[in-house]
Parts: sequence; C-alpha cells; structure tokens
Amino acid sequence: MDTIKATINRIKPVNPDLLRQAQTRLDNKTKPPGSLGRLEEFARRMAAISGTEVPDLSKKVIFTFAGDHGVVEEGVSLYPKEVTPQMVFNFLAGGAGVNVLARHSGAEVRVVDVGVDFDFGDTPGMLHRKVARGTRNFTKGPAMTREETVAALQVGIDLADQCRAEGVGLVGTGEMGIGNTTPSSAIIAAISGKTVAEVTHRGTGIGDEALVNKIRVIEAGLAINKPDPRDPLDVLAKVGGLEIAAIAGLVLGCAANSIPVVIDGFISTAGALIASELHPNVRDYIFAAHESVEIGHSFMLERIGAEPILDLNFRLGEGTGAALAMGLIDAGVKIMKEMATFEQAGVTK
Amino acid sequence: MDTIKATINRIKPVNPDLLRQAQTRLDNKTKPPGSLGRLEEFARRMAAISGTEVPDLSKKVIFTFAGDHGVVEEGVSLYPKEVTPQMVFNFLAGGAGVNVLARHSGAEVRVVDVGVDFDFGDTPGMLHRKVARGTRNFTKGPAMTREETVAALQVGIDLADQCRAEGVGLVGTGEMGIGNTTPSSAIIAAISGKTVAEVTHRGTGIGDEALVNKIRVIEAGLAINKPDPRDPLDVLAKVGGLEIAAIAGLVLGCAANSIPVVIDGFISTAGALIASELHPNVRDYIFAAHESVEIGHSFMLERIGAEPILDLNFRLGEGTGAALAMGLIDAGVKIMKEMATFEQAGVTK
Repeated sequence: MDTIKATINRIKPVNPDLLRQAQTRLDNKTKPPGSLGRLEEFARRMAAISGTEVPDLSKKVIFTFAGDHGVVEEGVSLYPKEVTPQMVFNFLAGGAGVNVLARHSGAEVRVVDVGVDFDFGDTPGMLHRKVARGTRNFTKGPAMTREETVAALQVGIDLADQCRAEGVGLVGTGEMGIGNTTPSSAIIAAISGKTVAEVTHRGTGIGDEALVNKIRVIEAGLAINKPDPRDPLDVLAKVGGLEIAAIAGLVLGCAANSIPVVIDGFISTAGALIASELHPNVRDYIFAAHESVEIGHSFMLERIGAEPILDLNFRLGEGTGAALAMGLIDAGVKIMKEMATFEQAGVTK
Repeated sequence: MDTIKATINRIKPVNPDLLRQAQTRLDNKTKPPGSLGRLEEFARRMAAISGTEVPDLSKKVIFTFAGDHGVVEEGVSLYPKEVTPQMVFNFLAGGAGVNVLARHSGAEVRVVDVGVDFDFGDTPGMLHRKVARGTRNFTKGPAMTREETVAALQVGIDLADQCRAEGVGLVGTGEMGIGNTTPSSAIIAAISGKTVAEVTHRGTGIGDEALVNKIRVIEAGLAINKPDPRDPLDVLAKVGGLEIAAIAGLVLGCAANSIPVVIDGFISTAGALIASELHPNVRDYIFAAHESVEIGHSFMLERIGAEPILDLNFRLGEGTGAALAMGLIDAGVKIMKEMATFEQAGVTK
C-alpha cells in the first residue's frame, strides 16, 4: 500500500506551457491552423506529457492482462471460463485480434497472467504475475481481499516503471477474462450511483434473459458487499477483478512515469476510472481509444474527461481498440516531426 | 464523352453472395461474431469488391489533384491563388500533411496537375494532365466548357485504368486548390436543392463577413448559370472545378475497374457525389474517409450512402483523411488474413 501511495504522490499535472509551445510549432506547419483537428491534439498532448516536442515512439507496448472471475458461475457470460487460458495461448501464438492490430500499428503485445484460473507452468513468452487463480464470486462476498487488490495494482505499477526504464514511448491497455464486463459494470454502478440496468450491457453478446440475470447478479453483489464509492480500492476489491486492478495500476504507473497511456474499451476504462478516482492528475496522461458498444462506457469517459478517438463499434477488448488508436496518435506525432513549415516549403502563410 | 459512357456501362453492383461468404470467414475467427464492428465491414466489402477474400494491399495510391478557381477573385478564400502551386511543390518534396500521413499508412502520393494556373514546365515527379489553367469565375458564366469537364473526368478515368493494370489494391482521393470549397458547396446546393447557406462553411477558416460574401458569390453563380440538377455533368461544368471533375472520373474509373476507393473530405465527396449521380452502382465501391467539419458534407454522405470512418475534426483536404482511413481499411483486411480461427487456435466456439 505504501508504494501505491508513493506512486500516486509522483503524479504531476501536465504543464500547460508545453501544450502551448507544441501548438505554436504545429501552427508553423503548411496547413491552416487547427486543420488537422484531433491529430494536432494528440501531437500537442504527447509533447507535453513526454516533455519533448517529438517524442520517440519506436517502442510502443500493449499489456493484455488476463484474469478469471468467480462470478462466471452465475451464468453472466456466453463463453465458458476455459476460454480465458485458451485465448492466452492464442495471444502467445500471435493469432488473436490484438496481435494482428498491434502488428499493424507497430506495437508489441505483452501478455500478463495476473489471475487466470489455470496453471501455465513456465509457459514461455508471457509475464507470470499471478496474484490468485481468479476472483471469488462477488454475489457471496468480496471478489478479492484488500491484499490481493493491492498486489494486482502493484503488478501494473511495476510494469509501468519497467516501461520507463526501457524508454517505451506509448503504452496501451488490454485484457482477457471471461465474464469481465460484469465486474466492470459493478464498478461503474458503485462509483456513479447509477442503477445497474443503466450501465450493464450484453458483453460478448448475451440475449435478453441473460441480460436480466446479469443485472440481477450485479445488484446482488452490490447489495451484499456495499462498496464505498469514496474508497476506489474498496470498490475494486469487492466487485472488481485482478486484471482490472492491474490496469488501474498500469495507468497510475504510466502517469507517475510521464508515459502516455491509451485505454482500450469498456473493461480497461473501468480500470482507468479507478486510477483517476485515486488521483485526478492521472487524467492528463490518458487517451481513450474508442467508444465501446457497451452502455456505461460514455459515463466513465466523461468522468475521466477523455474523448474517444475511434468509433468503430468494437466490443472485443484485448487491447484491439488501443492498438488502432496508438497508430493514430503515432500519426499525430509524425505531423509534428515530419511536416514542413511555411518557411521550409516556401508557402505563403 | 463516349468513353465516359463506356466506363459507366462497365460498373456492376457488388455481388452480395461475396459479402456473405466473407462474413462467414470472419465469423470463424477467434472473437465473438461481429465484435470487431466496422473493421469487419471493411474486410467484407474489400473482399466483395475485389473478388478475393484477402485482397492484396501492397500497393495503395492516393491521387492529389490540383486545380485553380477563377471564383477566387471574388474573395472567397483566406489564401491567395499562388498557394496552389506552392503546395504542389510541397507535395513533391514530401513535406505536406498528405505526404506524412500517406507514408504512415504505406500509401504512395501521386500529384496530378489537372488545372493549376501555373506553368510547371517539365517539373519531375508529378503527373502533367493540365486541362486548363484554372476555371473561369462562375459568377460571370460557366466555370468550364463541357469539353473541359469531360477531359478532366477522363484524366481520372485513365488513372484508374492504369491502377488496374498496376494491381493497385486501394485508391484514395485528394485535392489542392485554393478556393475549392466554394465550387463544392455550389455543387451540393445545385444537386440537393438546399439553400446555399445550408451547405456553405468556412473552408480554410474565413470569418463571418467573408462567409456572408462566399454565400452571396455562390448564389450569384447558381443564378447566372442555372445548372440542371438532373444532369450532373452540367452542374460540374457550370459551378465545379477541374480537380473535382478529375476526382469524379477517378471514382467512376475505380468502380468500373472493381477497385475500392476512399474519398477524402468535403471537396472529394463533391466529386464522388457527381460520380454517384452519374450511376448509383458507384456507391458500392466507395469508402468515406471521415466526417468533415464543413457543413453540407453529411448531406453528401447520406446521398452516397457512405458512413464516415473517422471523425477527427479534419478540414485540410489533400487526401489526409483518406490516408488515415486507408490504414484502418488495411487493418480490416489483415483481420481477415492473419487472425486465427477457433479451430486453429483450439478455442471453444
């Protein structure tokens, strides 16, 4: 807990002077001022976050955190729990959606077992950071202990610290965990005070009856655990998940290390929401990859103050949205770096 | 005119069976069905248009057509006409926005002089297809003769035919022409019957007074020329532009050659609108890169039946939006090509 507090204390707001300096440089490029819209916003924020006008994006990393959920036994997902480790092997083989899109954007995928209910032994190519073999069923008590929650947060913080040491210029979040839209909706309901029905959707594609059940399950979890909305770690422990906690830690750690972080969809945003509730300065370091199909997502983005970059009706997770958005952020940085100025090109301003 | 009719006669609707076959292949990939949203739409349409499930996108080309506009003497733009050739040299040197973003997406930029009021001599690296040194001021009569219009259309058609011969897998449109939002708005008003004020915006960033003048200028052009909305070539000739005509021709030619074409922003969409008014089957081959800031754009996209891929508040033109959208379409094709199936990955379906 002490290192988490220490991490939070390291998070400073981004210097607005750097944002202005970056925009001045953009305004000298051969285009009407502001005409590249959000690409200029990306370039400006990337410069201000990293403290250099042309940040080095040769190393971009997406962390895909995997974890299981005890609440799956309540029938909240279309897929069996076995799919979590099966998909981990798919990530390691490079065949999943996030692998394809990360390659497309020139990013590396690092797969982290933070809580899968499966013994991976010494399977190579993955990061073994298992805190527990999944969470407990939150309809019967807390999903995690406070200690497990802190340990999972610390996994994310440590990975961010390591990114700083490696010179990673842009980090993306992702996750895999059958059933994990359920804890995500529970987190949003607990923090927002909205009804569960307002923030709960179909996940991988459940039907009407299953959706009614999912809402009932989350309501039961909130009723029995009574998470305290003023204590984000309490919410995370009682109705969250190990991969969600690791994402929250990664986002905290990126902010503490001045590394911009692209949050993927619904579940990743629930993790980022916990981080931003722990300290509002975190928000300066976040890029929201896309608008998810899941309801409740827009509430979180508003609360975090992030405008989604893409709107392609994604609902896959893994880091797929982050991968594509990282490509667009990269494009913004290249505008700053590669475009000619009016003077260089001999163009009348 | 005969070759334009012949081109139009070659345009066939896309086979819906191919769309279904492509979706079946996507549904075997390791993800919930439809969970990659519009990326699946891109993959499916690309497969159906090109007639192969995994189209070859190793060659992607953006054509940036440059032309001048006589109507600039009415004070419709913030920038002087000299900027058109200055920007052409910037394109050739690789320093403009479209160059940076095309490199980012792995596309080649080909710069076409179809109507710049400047003598480029034998400047290397560009395509010399000048039809006239700019259009005439449409407040005093037609912008172009019917012959000039047909010649500029033919420029685009010929380039599309050449792309087919070269095996180009995806084409993008772009343009440069100081003042060219003015003829674009005039085209939309003529075809839609909407008032000029409803479809006219600030272009590169003119102020309130200049906007009032721009609207008045377009109204004068429509009043004196009386373009016939049932004859798209009449509209194009009387209030259009040479680069807009070339874009219309490129879009027609791509459709005739079964090449998918990504239309950039406001001006490119005006060109694509002319093409789709000439034959509705054209619409099957169009991808709309992005939602432009210019009002009147959404009317055109609705009429063409295209949903924009990006919404990044761009208003630069050149092909910048097309360049980024081509990267996302490419990502969709890679999903089809590279993602593992449930069977390959040993994942429970």
